[in-house]
Amino acid sequence: MYRSHSCGELNATHINKEVTLAGWVQKSRDKGFIIWVDLRDRYGITQLIFDEERTPATIMEKAKSLGREFVIQVTGTVIERESKSTKLATGAIEVLVSQLEILNEAITPPFTIEDETDGGEDIRMKYRYLDIRRNPVKDSLIFRHKVTMEVRKYLSDQEFIEVETPYLIKSTPEGARDFVVPSRMNEGQFYALPQSPQTFKQLLMVGGMDKYFQIVKCFRDEDLRADRQPEFTQIDCEMAFVEQEDILNIFEGLTRHLLKEVNGVEVEKFPRMLYDDAMRLYGNDKPDIRFGMEFAELNAVTQHKDFGVFNSAELVVGIAVPRGNSYTRKEIDNIIKWVKRPQVGALGMIYCRVNEDGTFKSSVDKFYDQEDLAKWVAATNAKPGDLVCVLSGETNKVRTQMSALRMELAERLGLRDPKVFAPLWVIDFPLLELDEETGHYHAMHHPFTSPKPGQLELLDTKPGEVKANAYDLVLNGNEIGGGSIRIHDKATQATMLKHLGFSEDEARKQFGFLMDAFEYGAPPHGGLAFGLDRLVAILGGQETIRDFIAFPKNNSGRDVMIDAPAFIDDVQLTELSLKLDIKE
Amino acid sequence: MYRSHSCGELNATHINKEVTLAGWVQKSRDKGFIIWVDLRDRYGITQLIFDEERTPATIMEKAKSLGREFVIQVTGTVIERESKSTKLATGAIEVLVSQLEILNEAITPPFTIEDETDGGEDIRMKYRYLDIRRNPVKDSLIFRHKVTMEVRKYLSDQEFIEVETPYLIKSTPEGARDFVVPSRMNEGQFYALPQSPQTFKQLLMVGGMDKYFQIVKCFRDEDLRADRQPEFTQIDCEMAFVEQEDILNIFEGLTRHLLKEVNGVEVEKFPRMLYDDAMRLYGNDKPDIRFGMEFAELNAVTQHKDFGVFNSAELVVGIAVPRGNSYTRKEIDNIIKWVKRPQVGALGMIYCRVNEDGTFKSSVDKFYDQEDLAKWVAATNAKPGDLVCVLSGETNKVRTQMSALRMELAERLGLRDPKVFAPLWVIDFPLLELDEETGHYHAMHHPFTSPKPGQLELLDTKPGEVKANAYDLVLNGNEIGGGSIRIHDKATQATMLKHLGFSEDEARKQFGFLMDAFEYGAPPHGGLAFGLDRLVAILGGQETIRDFIAFPKNNSGRDVMIDAPAFIDDVQLTELSLKLDIKE
Repeated sequence: MYRSHSCGELNATHINKEVTLAGWVQKSRDKGFIIWVDLRDRYGITQLIFDEERTPATIMEKAKSLGREFVIQVTGTVIERESKSTKLATGAIEVLVSQLEILNEAITPPFTIEDETDGGEDIRMKYRYLDIRRNPVKDSLIFRHKVTMEVRKYLSDQEFIEVETPYLIKSTPEGARDFVVPSRMNEGQFYALPQSPQTFKQLLMVGGMDKYFQIVKCFRDEDLRADRQPEFTQIDCEMAFVEQEDILNIFEGLTRHLLKEVNGVEVEKFPRMLYDDAMRLYGNDKPDIRFGMEFAELNAVTQHKDFGVFNSAELVVGIAVPRGNSYTRKEIDNIIKWVKRPQVGALGMIYCRVNEDGTFKSSVDKFYDQEDLAKWVAATNAKPGDLVCVLSGETNKVRTQMSALRMELAERLGLRDPKVFAPLWVIDFPLLELDEETGHYHAMHHPFTSPKPGQLELLDTKPGEVKANAYDLVLNGNEIGGGSIRIHDKATQATMLKHLGFSEDEARKQFGFLMDAFEYGAPPHGGLAFGLDRLVAILGGQETIRDFIAFPKNNSGRDVMIDAPAFIDDVQLTELSLKLDIKE
Repeated sequence: MYRSHSCGELNATHINKEVTLAGWVQKSRDKGFIIWVDLRDRYGITQLIFDEERTPATIMEKAKSLGREFVIQVTGTVIERESKSTKLATGAIEVLVSQLEILNEAITPPFTIEDETDGGEDIRMKYRYLDIRRNPVKDSLIFRHKVTMEVRKYLSDQEFIEVETPYLIKSTPEGARDFVVPSRMNEGQFYALPQSPQTFKQLLMVGGMDKYFQIVKCFRDEDLRADRQPEFTQIDCEMAFVEQEDILNIFEGLTRHLLKEVNGVEVEKFPRMLYDDAMRLYGNDKPDIRFGMEFAELNAVTQHKDFGVFNSAELVVGIAVPRGNSYTRKEIDNIIKWVKRPQVGALGMIYCRVNEDGTFKSSVDKFYDQEDLAKWVAATNAKPGDLVCVLSGETNKVRTQMSALRMELAERLGLRDPKVFAPLWVIDFPLLELDEETGHYHAMHHPFTSPKPGQLELLDTKPGEVKANAYDLVLNGNEIGGGSIRIHDKATQATMLKHLGFSEDEARKQFGFLMDAFEYGAPPHGGLAFGLDRLVAILGGQETIRDFIAFPKNNSGRDVMIDAPAFIDDVQLTELSLKLDIKE
C-alpha cells in the first residue's frame, strides 16, 4: 500500500503520528524557506509543509520541482496547523514531510483541475480523465453509485430479483431505430442492441420470476437531441399478479426511499393527475408542480366580443404570472418576442395587467372592458400585481406553447428550485397516439401496453379515446419513469398489433415468441422503467445528465476521448460478409 | 393485488384465515368428490382442496377443468391438512377453496415443469420462459442475484465506486475478435462492443476515482467452445496506489465474504502458488487442489535404462492414482485409450501397479526392475494399492496431457466434490507467451500488464522469462478471476507495445488516448476481473454456466427463443451505408 491514510481523513487526533500519503499536487506555494503543497486524492485535500529548518535539503530541493498534478508519495509527521482552515475536513493539521517520492510527473493539464474550471465542454470531454478529477464530476459519479446502491437495496429487500437480460437480441422495426451488430457466425444476419429489455422482462413474468428488476444499458440510434445519449441506463422493473395500484405504491416507495436516503428529504404521498388534466392544466404530460401558474381555459369569457383572433381559436388559454405586473412594456415585448420564436411558434400574446388598485389594463382594451377582464383574472386566479398572459389557437399547439411560456417564466422567476422535489404520478395515458404526418395511430408507450378493461372494443371506432393503465412518474417537470399494465393474452396482443398496422405475418415474425409464451400460462403483469441518468441528475439538483455519466458521447454520437466510432480493417468487414456502400 | 399471500408462506399459524392466492397449477388430483390442486409460484407450492361437500358446485366444476400450468386465482380458508407433508414449507396446511378464477389458460407445455424434466437442452432453450419456471433454473437465477448483491455490498463497504463505462467503444485488433456496431451518423465507421472495460478503468484511475468496480457485460466474437457465451459478465475492479499484495487481500476478502454469506462456508487464508510451480506440479495454471495427485518429474529415475521412449523424452512425468491398483487390465486399457484420444493426444501411457505386499508390477518390467520402480513410487508418493501413471514427451504437451488425465481420474474417483471449495492464488505469471504458430510473443494477460520491477530490460534478450505481477484466482480448477499491476507511464507502455509488434503509428492510433493520459499524472494502479458467470456456477456447485444465465445463446451464438440474429431490412442496411457481401 502506498499510503497509511487518505488525504481526507487526518485531523487533530492524529497529531504527532507518522503517516504516509499519496496523491496529486493540487497546488504549491513556495516561500523559499517554506513550501506548502496541497495534496489531493478522491477523499480530500491535505496540506503538506516542507520547511528549510526541519526538512532535509534534498527533499526541500525535490519539493521545489513539483508541478501541478504530479503524483507523489510523502511520509511525514502530522502537526498542528498555525492558520487553521474550517473549509477542509483536514484543516486543523498539516503534514511536515520527511520523505518525498515522485511517483509520476505530469505535463500541464489543458484546463485547471478546479471546481470552476477554465475548460470548455469540448476540451473537457477530450480529456475526460482529467475532468473526472474535478469535484463536480467526481462527486456526481459517486452520487450515482450511491443512488444505484440504494435502488438495489430497496428493490432486493422487496424481493425483486435482478436478472441480466441479453444485449445481443433481434431488431424490431417498431419504435426508434436499433443499433445492429453483424454476426460473423450467421452470415448476413444481425443482432440488435436492446432499446429496452421489454419483451425479456415480460417473458420472465411468464417464467414465474414474479418480481424482476435490472439496472441496464439501453441503446437508441436516434439523431441526438440536446442532452440525449445513444446509450443510456434504465432501472427496469416488472411484477406479476399486480394491478396498477400495486406498481405505483412500490415505485413511489422506491422514489421516497431515494429522496430520503440520498437527499435527506421526506416527501408526502405523491399526488396523482389524469393525463387529460395534465394536458388541460399544464399543456404537458410531465408538469412541473413546484409552482402554480395553472392554465385557465378562457373560451367562455373571451369569445363573446369582436376579437377575431380569439373567436376563431379552438382554445384560448391564460396563466397568471406572479408579480408580473412589474414587467415594463419592454420586458413584456420581449416575452412576446420569445413566444413568437420558431422554437415556440405562437403568433402573438395577449396580456392583462392586474393593478394593485383592482383595475386591469390589457393589450386588447379595445375589445374587452373591465368586467370582461375581471373574468380572465378570476379564471386564472391572478392576484393584484400579477400579469395574465393569454395565447390562442389550435388546442394541441397552443397548449404546447403555453407550457413552454409557463416554464420559461417560472425559470426567470426562480420558481424552479432544484432543492425542492415535487413528484407526481400522471395516469390514464391514451393507448394510442395519432401520428399527424402519416395519419396512423401508434402505441403511445409500446405495443405491449394493455387497454383499460372494457375499452378494447373502442379500438375500431374511436382509437384515440382508448385509455390505458399507463402511468408516468414525473419529478420537477421531468419524466423520470413510465410504465403500464401489459397485455398477457395472445388474442389481445394480436388485435393490438393489427391496429398498429402489423400484418399477421410481420406480427408473427417479430413477436411470435412472445405471443406463443402467452399461450403457456402468462400471469397478469405490469411494470415500469426509470431513466437512471435523468433521475440521478435531478436528485443531484442538476438539469443536464452529462456530468453524471463517466464517459458520455457528444451530439454526433462520438466519444471524442477515444475517438470512436472509427474505420475498421477490411479483413474485419470481409469476415462479417459486409462491404461499405458510401454515398458519393 | 391478486393475492394476500404467496404460495410459500402459509403455515399452521394461518389456520382459519381467509386468504387469496394466485399462481400456476403444478398438478391436480381428481378423486371425483375431492380435487386437490398444487398451486405454484416463485415462493413455493400450496395445496388447494375442492370438496364436494364444502365447495360450491360451480367452483367444483371449474376446478375439474384446470390443466397443468393454468394461471388461477383462488380465495379460501386455510385448514389443517390431514396427511401433512414435511417436504413443503406449507405442508401443514391446505386451502379450502371458495372462489376460483382462471386468469389465463395454458396449452400443454412441450416438457414437464419439474425439477427433473423430460425436455432436452434444445427444447428447453426454445421455451426458456417455461424452463425458468423449473426450480433448478429459477433457483440458479435467484442465487446469481444474491451473489451480485453481496459483491456490491462488500465492495461498496470497502469504498469502491461502481462506475458505468461505455458499451459503444472502439475496435482494437489486439486479442480476441470484437463485435462491431456500424454508426449511422458517422458514415462507414464502427463502434465496437467492449471485450472488457480495461482501458476505461485505467482512465478512471488516472481520473482519481481510486477504487472502481463494475458488474458489466463484455463481448467476444469467438468461435464458441463448450460453455462459452458471446456475451458474458465480469466483476471488473481497479485500484490506485496499491501493490499486488493489497489487491490479493481485497479480493481474497471478497471471495471469502461470498463463500460465507452465500455458501455458509468459512475458508482459511488462500494458498499462493507460483505459476511455474503450478505448471510443474499440475501441468496447468488453474490447478484443482481439492485433491492431491501432484506430478512427479521422473526423468532422473527413468532415463538410465534402455527404454527409448523415456530416454528421448524432454519430460517424463508420473502421478499416483489413489486405489488405482484395483483397476482391471481392461480398465487400464480404457484409460490408455482415453489418453490416446485426439482431444488428449498422448502416444501411450506407462503404468506401475503398487501392490499391497510392497511389490510393483509395471507395463515396462522388461526395462525397469523393482528398485527402479520403487523410485517412481517414492517420487509420486504412491501408497500400496495405488497405480502410478506415467506420460512422456515434449514438456508443454505432456504436462497438458497429464493434467487432463489427472482431472479425468479425479472425476471418476469422485474427488471433485462440488461442496468443497479450494481457492488458490496463482501468481508471477509470465508477461509474454510464445505463439507457437507465428513464433511471435503476445501478452499473456493484456498489453497493459506491467513487467516485474527491473525485468523490463530482459524483454530484448529473454522475453519468455520476463515475469509480471499478474495473478489468477483459481477455484476448484477454474480460473474465476485474474488481474495484474498495470503499466502507468508512457515510456514503458510504448516499449511494451513495440515488443508486441505494434508500429509506433498503430500504437498511437489504438492506444494514444491511454498513453496521453499517462502523461498527466497517472498513479500506480492495478486490478482484477472475475468471470461472474463461472463464479456463480461454481459457488452454486455446478460446472456449467448455462442455467445461471437467464437467456443464454447456443454454440452458434444464436438465441433460439427469439430467433436471433436475423436478417434486417435493406432500408436499415442502406441507412448504415452497408451492403451484404455473401460468399457463394
